[in-house]
Parts: sequence; structure tokens; C-alpha cells
Amino acid sequence: MKSVDLNSDIGEGFGVYTMGDDGAILRCVSSVNVACGWHAGDALIMHDLAQQAKALGVGLGAHVGYPDLLGFGRRTMQISPKEARCYTLYQVGALEAFAQSYGFSLQHVKLHGSFYNQASHHLELAQAVLEAIQAYNPNLIVLTLAQSTMSQEGQKMGLKIAQEAFIDRHYQANGQLLPRSHPKALIHDPQEAIDRALKMVLKQKVSTPEGVEIEIKADSLCVHGDTPCALELAKQVRHALEIQGVCIQPLVRVLGLSH
Amino acid sequence: MKSVDLNSDIGEGFGVYTMGDDGAILRCVSSVNVACGWHAGDALIMHDLAQQAKALGVGLGAHVGYPDLLGFGRRTMQISPKEARCYTLYQVGALEAFAQSYGFSLQHVKLHGSFYNQASHHLELAQAVLEAIQAYNPNLIVLTLAQSTMSQEGQKMGLKIAQEAFIDRHYQANGQLLPRSHPKALIHDPQEAIDRALKMVLKQKVSTPEGVEIEIKADSLCVHGDTPCALELAKQVRHALEIQGVCIQPLVRVLGLSH
Amino acid sequence: MKSVDLNSDIGEGFGVYTMGDDGAILRCVSSVNVACGWHAGDALIMHDLAQQAKALGVGLGAHVGYPDLLGFGRRTMQISPKEARCYTLYQVGALEAFAQSYGFSLQHVKLHGSFYNQASHHLELAQAVLEAIQAYNPNLIVLTLAQSTMSQEGQKMGLKIAQEAFIDRHYQANGQLLPRSHPKALIHDPQEAIDRALKMVLKQKVSTPEGVEIEIKADSLCVHGDTPCALELAKQVRHALEIQGVCIQPLVRVLGLSH
Amino acid sequence: MKSVDLNSDIGEGFGVYTMGDDGAILRCVSSVNVACGWHAGDALIMHDLAQQAKALGVGLGAHVGYPDLLGFGRRTMQISPKEARCYTLYQVGALEAFAQSYGFSLQHVKLHGSFYNQASHHLELAQAVLEAIQAYNPNLIVLTLAQSTMSQEGQKMGLKIAQEAFIDRHYQANGQLLPRSHPKALIHDPQEAIDRALKMVLKQKVSTPEGVEIEIKADSLCVHGDTPCALELAKQVRHALEIQGVCIQPLVRVLGLSH
Repeated sequence: MKSVDLNSDIGEGFGVYTMGDDGAILRCVSSVNVACGWHAGDALIMHDLAQQAKALGVGLGAHVGYPDLLGFGRRTMQISPKEARCYTLYQVGALEAFAQSYGFSLQHVKLHGSFYNQASHHLELAQAVLEAIQAYNPNLIVLTLAQSTMSQEGQKMGLKIAQEAFIDRHYQANGQLLPRSHPKALIHDPQEAIDRALKMVLKQKVSTPEGVEIEIKADSLCVHGDTPCALELAKQVRHALEIQGVCIQPLVRVLGLSH
Repeated sequence: MKSVDLNSDIGEGFGVYTMGDDGAILRCVSSVNVACGWHAGDALIMHDLAQQAKALGVGLGAHVGYPDLLGFGRRTMQISPKEARCYTLYQVGALEAFAQSYGFSLQHVKLHGSFYNQASHHLELAQAVLEAIQAYNPNLIVLTLAQSTMSQEGQKMGLKIAQEAFIDRHYQANGQLLPRSHPKALIHDPQEAIDRALKMVLKQKVSTPEGVEIEIKADSLCVHGDTPCALELAKQVRHALEIQGVCIQPLVRVLGLSH
Repeated sequence: MKSVDLNSDIGEGFGVYTMGDDGAILRCVSSVNVACGWHAGDALIMHDLAQQAKALGVGLGAHVGYPDLLGFGRRTMQISPKEARCYTLYQVGALEAFAQSYGFSLQHVKLHGSFYNQASHHLELAQAVLEAIQAYNPNLIVLTLAQSTMSQEGQKMGLKIAQEAFIDRHYQANGQLLPRSHPKALIHDPQEAIDRALKMVLKQKVSTPEGVEIEIKADSLCVHGDTPCALELAKQVRHALEIQGVCIQPLVRVLGLSH
Repeated sequence: MKSVDLNSDIGEGFGVYTMGDDGAILRCVSSVNVACGWHAGDALIMHDLAQQAKALGVGLGAHVGYPDLLGFGRRTMQISPKEARCYTLYQVGALEAFAQSYGFSLQHVKLHGSFYNQASHHLELAQAVLEAIQAYNPNLIVLTLAQSTMSQEGQKMGLKIAQEAFIDRHYQANGQLLPRSHPKALIHDPQEAIDRALKMVLKQKVSTPEGVEIEIKADSLCVHGDTPCALELAKQVRHALEIQGVCIQPLVRVLGLSH
């Protein structure tokens, strides 16, 4: 029986500010990436989401970002490998404390925004983050961009690497994402996104804009929930997968690391 | 054989800013309270100090403060019990991650500045912090103001409570600190501070400004290192205690929780 | 012909976060209090709102708050008079720069949240803020709580003081607001709020919960726009006042300081 | 009679943190660049330095930086032209308020750290900053890197552009700074720095590492004061220039914009 994880970013509010419908997303996906107070998120939000993820059996992950609340962690910042290491440990530990206070542990770590993009393809940054996780807890799953430098490096290091794919993004023939700047980068038609999700999971394949079918191995599909439309699409993707007999379950089970 | 812990606040720099001579303090005391990035401190400083505390066998503690870097956590802020709980967990977890990345664990938690003052005597805040620690890790020592509401409440809850005394502050007959606003609150003479430290440890007694001797039970003496003078005094206190045969050791040993 | 100003808080987003429908509020009120990046707001939002206020002829005011984005400036913080002075100047100047870049000037200053509450009744804080404004630009209107210490002190100092009243809050017989903690503090019925607004403007009177009519002199009515309901009420209040022949105009005209 | 301005960065503390001896620098240079609370500095420091600059007749400038206190504004951040515009206006306005509260005005604006480096050579960023200043106050002097894109663009726009040179940095034959990464970038010998300062001011020339003499037009020499050594060098440079009959005076006089 096929299985896949659905992951989504949540906990991206701050103080009085809210973003997205975290409660609804938690009921739709199997793993969540919770902002840790740097690019978004705060201690109260983290607390409540850890509690809810536990209650719902959703895999809890730290969404580790740059120290740039004003730019939501999306701006390129030049950080050193040591900063990458320390920023990762700090944020992972902060969220872990809330999980631990409810008697469970983090399932995974995922980088956010510009940190994700930069570390995916910058070996030194990737290594710094991976070594931090290895030193902290080598059983923590690292959720990475499929085919990325970071994904490959993590596998070499013997870490538990999960690969994610995007149902609303086009890929190049080499397996990498088409840059956002490309006019065909984004897939706007919901049905097309659903069809792609099914093909990715059932056949491990995805089509490039030129119609070439390439292999893709996705342990997790990233879905968005920051708008009502995105949330609706996420629900439809889940439904379509389940109808095809795909089991939606947290990363730790998809990877066979838990029973 | 008598033993006592000496604790000091370190890691209070931020980015390019430095404060005190952390390396020298680490070599003088047996436990350190490391700022966790809210009232002071940052991820790189925390990383380096965790590594050094491990290497030197110094007990590592999270110094948990208000989210007020501009005011160094010294300004009164009205926070709710839930905020107290979540702020504590966040900061403790962040520092724990650095310890864990070096293969060890936090020894203790201590509140900082205005959070320390407010929680010491405000039952609801104290309970919120104590419950957070209990939920997170009931073996974590909580370093509290001797005779405070927080200290008493923590003992009732069955937590590992350590009591600290101040060698440069006067006490009232009821065992509480003379408020800083009182003209005799601070002890400026180094020799007097040293004499008081000896009496506290060797006889469990301290004299009020009126000359009344009261009982005091100090598991730890708080010494300062943010100025060259304060650091010098800390060294002299240590020396004077050792000459009298007192063993300076981390809280976890003073409390008999480790061997 | 009667005239009154309607003021509302806007610009309370931050980075990717939005709050309220600033564009709609700008079209409903005659003066706006724009957050200056401390309790909320950021430089881009301030820029755009200055431009729009100019275009629409709405009086632009600096909404000066505590350095507490996490708490939205609503938490009590203990600040010194010097801090009150400097925090005011900094934020007023920052917003003034945007106005000046569009060829106009700030109309007024209003404190926000906990700063507003504390300075309204704490003489030293009020004086510090008022002296800052006097030193900076004595023609800047200070929008204050009617009957407050700050309002009275500002008048003594010869500053341009405007008084605001709240259409959704009950008053005590002494003219002061019933504290929010009181069960009758808030007026939830929109029609009652509208009726109170009319009576305040047309008769300079307001009824206490006990039914006593007291005098109130309001140069400006504070209306909210942070929810669709609040915005709708604001529009209805404006409509009801205009039907009664009341002219809604910026503070500077209500006070007769401009033509 | 030759004249030149000496400028230095001050006000780079934050809250309890101090950096450099601002009082001594203020007595050594003729213009100061005061941090505005983003990369460093806070409202109280800005207040006090505005007051002191006024009292000493030193030209006051806003030192405008990235929103990155943790990185001291030295890290590359990707910001948009609109952000560059708004960040500049905000910080300039904030400092101007303190000057205005003491009855005077800003003399100049200078970008800091990574913002300085990026805008010096990136046309769109430079234009955004220059247009902000033009819209705000075209009489404000913009202190720029000699020979930079920003300097040239500002002159084209008709702004009051001042050029600064560095006495402790080597230049290339094309008049641009040798990058810091170059082994000969920095001049460590104080006497050499003094000799270069004299030649720059008296002969408008500077030697490249290869010994080629190139033209340089410096309205201001940038000197540092963040360490005792740097401050001492700044004093010696001033002394050496004065012995040669050079008049050290604020930018506004060097440029002949005031009497």
C-alpha cells in the first residue's frame, strides 16, 4: 500500500497577528512545520500547536528561519555556517521544549524561506545545518527539497532524510524546481495540481513543462494553507489520494521509522 | 565537609556587543546562568558557552528573561501566567539544544531581572514557571531566591529547588532581601561581602543591618562578573571559602543529585 | 455649525501581517493615528499611509507606542520619563519624514495602548511626552483622553490639546472612563453607540450607567476599524452625524487652527 | 586655506550595551554619523548625542542601516528599492526629531555597513535612497564613497553630495577601494595612515599599493573611534592636519553651504 506524508507550514502568526487557519490545516495534513519565533511564530503559538499536534497525531517539525520577522524570512541574508548551525539548534530546541512538555518529541526539521533556498544548494550551509541536527539528535528527520545538495549531503552523512515535492510547482528535466522567476514556474489550476500529486505518489513521476516525464521520489508533498483557496486545494489533494488508496501518514511512518 | 555552589550570570552580550569576561567567570564559579536571547544573549554566544561549560565541568543553567533586549529584561512588564510558562519553555529549550549538541544537559533554570523579581513573590507567575519546568523535566533544578514564594511553592510541588543568597545584599529580619531602594540595601565593602559569604556557608547565618543574626540556607551564592571589580570579588570569595575547607561545586552536587 | 473629528488607528500591520482595512478607514474618518513601527507598523506601511492621507485630506497623526511588538504595546511596561520623551520623539520624527517627503506635516500625536493609559494618569510620564512635543513642534496637536491628567497638563503648558471621547465605552460620573474590567465598561449595541455619539457632539453630554448625564467635550470621537463590524459602525456613526448637520473634519479644523 | 571634515560613526550602543567613547570622538571630529536604532543605537542614545553635537558644533548625520541589530547591519540583505527608500526616511526622520527638539537640523545622511556597500555600487538602491533624501530635504548633504555610483548619481540629481575617503584603506588605480578581501586592503601603520591623510587633503592624491599616484577628492575623511587605538589615531590625524594649516570643519562649511 502506497503512503505519503502531507506537510504544511503553520504557526506563522506573531503576537496579535494571525496567518492562515492552523486548526484546519492540522486536520488536513500529517506533518506540520511550525515557525519558531524568528521569521514568524511566537512562544504561545508554538505551545498551543505542539499541544494540538500531539492530540491529533500529526508529526511536529521545527520550521527554522532567518532572524528577519520584518521580511518573513524570505529575504536573502548572508549568514555564516556557524550562524546556520546555531540558528538551527536554537529554534529546534525552543520548539522541542513545548513537545517535551506534552510528553512527545519533534519528528522533523525543515528550513524556511530564504534559509531553505540557500541551504538547499549551498554545500557549506547545508553541512552546517545537517551537522547541527546530527549533533543534536540524529533520529530527527530532515525534510529537504528533493534532489537538492542538502538532501544528498544528508544521505551521505547517514541522517534520516525525507524528500518533499511541490504539487503547485514545475520541475526541470534535471529534477530541480523551475525557478519562481520562470513564467511557467507555478501551477495555478487546482485540478492540474491534484493530478500531479497523484502521479507523483502513484507513479513517482512528474511532467516538465515540455512534457518530459521524469522520476521523482517524494516522501512528503508540501501543501499550503495560508489562504482559503490553498487550504481547499490541500483538502482536495488529500481526498484524491485517499480515494486512490494512498495512506496519508506522518513522515516517521512513511519512512518506516515508527510503527 | 561543607559545600556550596557559586553562580553567576554570563552570556549577556548580543551580536557585536560584549558584556563581562565570560571566560574568566567560567573559571571562577561552579554554575552559570546563560542568557537565552530574549533580555540578552544570542545563539552563537549560547553555543560557545555550552561548549565551554561542558569542558570545564560547570553546571549550565538557562537564565530566562523578559522579551526586552532594549531594557535588558530589567523593566517591569505585565505578563500573564501563560506567557510566563511559554517564555520559560522556549528559552530553556533553546539553551538545552546547545547542551544536547555537546552531549550533556541543563543543570538548572533561573529567572532573570524583572522576571525573577516578579515571579519570586507573585504566586501565579511562580506556579506557571514551576509547572512549565515540571512538565518539561522535573529533574531540572530551579534556582530561586531563598525564602521566596517561588521557592516555597516549588518545594511543595516536589521540584528540585535550590536557594540562592546574595553576598552583597542586606536581608531583613524575616529573611527577605532589603529592597534596593533602601539606603543600606547594598554592601559595598568587599571584605564585608567575603565575611558574609563565609558566615552564610559555615554557620547558615547572616546579620541584618540592625545586627540581628538570622538563619539562611544557601545552596548557592550569587556572584557577579560584569565588571573587573565584581569578578575580582568573586575570585576572592571563592578563595576565602576554599581556605576554610568549603568545597565549591555545581548545584547538582551540592543538592546530592549527582556524584 | 457643529463639527467634530473622527479618529481611528491604522497602519497596525507589520511586514507580511495585515490588520484591518486601512483603505476603507481612511475614507471614513477625518484623522488617522498611524503606528510607527514599535508596537506595530513598519516603514513601508507608514510611507504608503502618509501618501494616502495626503491625497485624501485626512489628518495624519503619529500613534506612539511601547517597544513591544509581541504584546502590541498593550502590556504595562515601566518606563522612565526620559524614555517616554525619547520614544515619543523617535516615533513622531519617523512618521514626519514620510509626511515631509510628500510635502506636508503631521497634524497630531496620540499615544497608543498601555502608553496611552499610563501617561493619561501619570503626571511625570505625561509631562515628559508633552515636553517632548513642545520642544519638537508646539503646533503639533496632542490628542488626549478627555478629562485626563495629560489633557489638563498639556493645556497648562499651552500646547494644542484635543480631547477624544469613546462612543463604545461608558463613563463615570467624574468624567473618567469606566475601567475595562467593569462589566458595563463596553457598549456592545451599535445603535446605542450611535446615539451616544450624537448626544456627545450635539449636546456635549453623555450618560453614565446609572443614568446620570454628565458634560463631555469631545473634539474627536475615536472609532475602530480593525474588524468589519467596527468599520461598519464607524461608517454609520459618520452617516448619523452628517444627517444631523455635523461637519466631520480633521482636528486641525475642529480646533480652528487651519482654514 | 585648505579645509576638510573628519567624520566618525558614533551612537552604536544599544540599551545597556556601549560601544566606543562617543564623548571623546565628538571632541575630535567635525561631523558624526549617529546610528538610528536599526543596526545599532537607540532613542536615548540618539537624544543625548543630538544634544551634545549641538553643544559642540559638530555636524549631525543619520547613519542609516539595515534592520539587523544581531548582525550590526554588516550582513548582506537583499532589500528592494522601495525598502531602501522607506528605511532611509524612517531613520533620518527619527534622528531629525531629536535635532529639532534642540533647535537645529541634520547636516547629512550616510549609509552604514552593508547598506553603504550595496548602495554605493547598485544603481537602483542608490537612486531609491537619493530620491528619498531629495523628497525629504534636498539640502541634506549625502555623504558617499568617493567615485561611487551613488556619488555620481547624486551629483546628476543635483543633490548636495559629499565624498569621503578612508585613511586606513588602499585604493585601486580606478579610484575605487581595494576590497577588504585583498591582503593589502587595510593600512595598519598609524604613521602611514597619517601621511596618507595629509596627502589626500593637501595634494588631493593617494598612492595605490603599486605606487601609482591617483587623484582623490575628499570632502571628509572617515576616522574610527570604536577602539582606544582608533581614537588615538583619529586624534593624531586631526593634529597633523591642523599643524599643516588645514581647517577641520563640518561638511556644511567644507562644501560652502553655511558660513
